[in-house]
Amino acid sequence: MLREKSLLMIPGPTPIPPQVAAAMTRPMINHRGEEFSALFAEVSAGLQQVFRTEQPVYIFPAAGSGGWEAALVNTLNPGDTVLSVSVGDFGERWYRAATKLGLTVERLRFEPGEAADPARIAERLAEDRQKQIQAVLVQHNETSTGVTNDVRSIARVVREHGALIMVDSVSGLGALPLEMDAWGLDVVLTGAQKALMCPPGLSLIAFSERARAASERSRMPRFYWDLEAVHKSYLKRQTPYTPAISLYYALQASLRLIQAETLEGVWARHRLMGAMCRAGVKAMGLTLLAQDEATASDTCTAVVSPVDPKAVRKVARERLGVQLAGGQADLADKIFRIGHMGYTVPGDVLQALAATEMALALCGYPVEIGRAVAAAQEVWMRDLHG
Amino acid sequence: MLREKSLLMIPGPTPIPPQVAAAMTRPMINHRGEEFSALFAEVSAGLQQVFRTEQPVYIFPAAGSGGWEAALVNTLNPGDTVLSVSVGDFGERWYRAATKLGLTVERLRFEPGEAADPARIAERLAEDRQKQIQAVLVQHNETSTGVTNDVRSIARVVREHGALIMVDSVSGLGALPLEMDAWGLDVVLTGAQKALMCPPGLSLIAFSERARAASERSRMPRFYWDLEAVHKSYLKRQTPYTPAISLYYALQASLRLIQAETLEGVWARHRLMGAMCRAGVKAMGLTLLAQDEATASDTCTAVVSPVDPKAVRKVARERLGVQLAGGQADLADKIFRIGHMGYTVPGDVLQALAATEMALALCGYPVEIGRAVAAAQEVWMRDLHG
Repeated sequence: MLREKSLLMIPGPTPIPPQVAAAMTRPMINHRGEEFSALFAEVSAGLQQVFRTEQPVYIFPAAGSGGWEAALVNTLNPGDTVLSVSVGDFGERWYRAATKLGLTVERLRFEPGEAADPARIAERLAEDRQKQIQAVLVQHNETSTGVTNDVRSIARVVREHGALIMVDSVSGLGALPLEMDAWGLDVVLTGAQKALMCPPGLSLIAFSERARAASERSRMPRFYWDLEAVHKSYLKRQTPYTPAISLYYALQASLRLIQAETLEGVWARHRLMGAMCRAGVKAMGLTLLAQDEATASDTCTAVVSPVDPKAVRKVARERLGVQLAGGQADLADKIFRIGHMGYTVPGDVLQALAATEMALALCGYPVEIGRAVAAAQEVWMRDLHG
Repeated sequence: MLREKSLLMIPGPTPIPPQVAAAMTRPMINHRGEEFSALFAEVSAGLQQVFRTEQPVYIFPAAGSGGWEAALVNTLNPGDTVLSVSVGDFGERWYRAATKLGLTVERLRFEPGEAADPARIAERLAEDRQKQIQAVLVQHNETSTGVTNDVRSIARVVREHGALIMVDSVSGLGALPLEMDAWGLDVVLTGAQKALMCPPGLSLIAFSERARAASERSRMPRFYWDLEAVHKSYLKRQTPYTPAISLYYALQASLRLIQAETLEGVWARHRLMGAMCRAGVKAMGLTLLAQDEATASDTCTAVVSPVDPKAVRKVARERLGVQLAGGQADLADKIFRIGHMGYTVPGDVLQALAATEMALALCGYPVEIGRAVAAAQEVWMRDLHG
């Protein structure tokens, strides 16, 4: 087998388009020169379109989770209470980050596969008559369980209470509809290595006017993530520290691809891939971890594995050329996951489903070969006719 | 003119070798898979060789200055006193970072062009009879003034006092001799975009056993930079957050180049380039900002400009295809700088000197064309005969 060619169907990092890979080979430039300023301006404008915001989108050389820290240390004060709304492992990690940074964190956890219920968040906030809760933290999309939260409705109930609404859209933004300004989101953060089709290493974050006002009152110790420093540089089309220039070139190339497809087109492609993947999984007789089709994720499908998921993944990877993801934390022995975001097309989903089906068969689980792909093809055909 | 070809002679980011650029185009991989573990292991071992340490070298997706924060928040406690030894702009920035993070910072500043005097540091530490000073912060190499500090001697006096010695070697490590373990350095940090010949975006940091012990007592709030989390992952050849995989490939390629040349060979090349550059500058009748040849930097030469340095740089860049750096902060109108580190060879220094000389002439300053290059050639010839 040509093992070098392997289809990466994990929920990030995602495959890199050749245009993006090539962009990174451009010669190094002076980060204080005009050429970088032009690059900065184009990338910044492109990001504002993808975030659907008129606010600046700041770029940190960092992993996506650096954005969790940037969101918190720029807007809050030591000991402040925040409400962590968690539907999975990434929710738990942001919760732990907030705790480690010295905040008082109340938790509202949902079962694996459940989406966050806006009504329950509203109830919890209604109990907070003293307005102790300064911010609500929530994932837009939780890849560990394959669930997308209804951020629009959640934002509405949080705005009624008055807390800041902070959204981790690391695995959502650029694939799933999100309207930062129209939905009244106060902080939106993401990474470039998911739907934005870049290699990992850039953390992207935007703050509403309300969040920026909170920042002026915030006394959390901060240096690297300091909003004031990054904003001052932003106005000069620079960064306070050396920017990850090659990754800016990558992001420039990927944003151009998104513009060519249109953001609405990108959203529609992900909606189709999600529907195809779920139809294929169900056709194999398997169960989705997501409890409700309406809140199942269009960027990552979590499948309850009828046999050892590690064995399924190993066969798929080594014999069938498709890389699936395992489960995280408590779900490690229970599920496998199919990522379908970024530089991924419906045909890739067919290939992933075929490999999943064959891997299950090779692991001794009774499946009828061909059914999963056929079911997904039917979804695609309906979409093409539609 | 073929403006796309331009010689980047600034003190970072530095030119990218073609092998390094090509490495970044490799397909994306699963950061939790075996392929990444192998990459991680090779890069980690290579970094230990360059740091001259048996301690782990941790890699953060971050700008080099992220290392300043990582050094401080992992080893100290809120309100602790640290001594900032500063010989230029980067010293001042680390000082400000420490202040912003809630530390009490005493300052020992030296004039631009001066190196830090170990005797004066020893005097200052001798006054600290209560052992209030928990750490001493110092740059190995200060590109803003073109000066290299005698870190070995400084470490000796700091160890006598008992404080931790923390070294920012962003523009030193991999070009200038540094022996983390043999010199007893407690924290050494650098970035990959300087002597290590990679694009910006990776912050590298190592801690001595003493520093790691301090970390266990440290109660500074931390999440992204948390040593415990990164060390726990290190043991599994992973990172707590998604690693900047393409930049790891870049670093793997550049470390292989360093191994092929040998680290001692890399040091010797930089020593030669520094000597050539200074000889050329002096042959033009110009003054170095560095006050003492013995502590002049071999990675960056700061030159007192006899005419407007911005005009010199503009002519060099636009008409002669060579990019020089300006001065920082108060030195912006006084100096220009020639970077000579990383993927840079003696012939590049000749070209930079030729362009500097011609730019000065074109700006109306009387120089005898050819003298600078000839002087540098003489230095190179002696080295070849040597």
